[in-house]
Amino acid sequence: MTDDPVLSELRARIDELDAALIRLMGERFEVTRKVGAHKREVGLPPADPAREEVQIARLRLLAEEADLDPTFSEKLLRLIIDEVIRDYARTGGTPGGSAP
Amino acid sequence: MTDDPVLSELRARIDELDAALIRLMGERFEVTRKVGAHKREVGLPPADPAREEVQIARLRLLAEEADLDPTFSEKLLRLIIDEVIRDYARTGGTPGGSAP
Repeated sequence: MTDDPVLSELRARIDELDAALIRLMGERFEVTRKVGAHKREVGLPPADPAREEVQIARLRLLAEEADLDPTFSEKLLRLIIDEVIRDYARTGGTPGGSAP
Repeated sequence: MTDDPVLSELRARIDELDAALIRLMGERFEVTRKVGAHKREVGLPPADPAREEVQIARLRLLAEEADLDPTFSEKLLRLIIDEVIRDYARTGGTPGGSAP
């Protein structure tokens, strides 16, 4: 793709990071599906606002430490939470929950 | 937060995954910043549509393998690419590039 060795090396690193990011994201949805299934089994409500609040505060801190732009990390977090809700509804739950 | 040991363990795993995701995301922007700086140094244009095309196709495949919802992975990818462009402009480049 490029004859520039510096660029090639940096791009190889980006590709590695992307693969790891996608893998971890997939694993995260596996776990949230287990949470959803478990909650249905024991009759817990899908949403847990207290947990969600702690989680968001923690992620904000981590994002700051990783020098991510706050607007970007908000959007990222929102995207993941929305997908967890959609995924929960898709896999047999009733929509309305926000933090399985 | 919860007395349910199953839920506690799954949530601990989610927290670990989130920390890893944020860390990798931070590292990814470090690398794209280096790409931007290098391109400015050697006079390469910020955007490289051919590279971007290959990258998107590869990420789609990885997302499929990780069993991610295609709509979700499209949005995730778009979010990251947009942030790379914003970050490139912010760190001294001229906007308009899409895949440093």
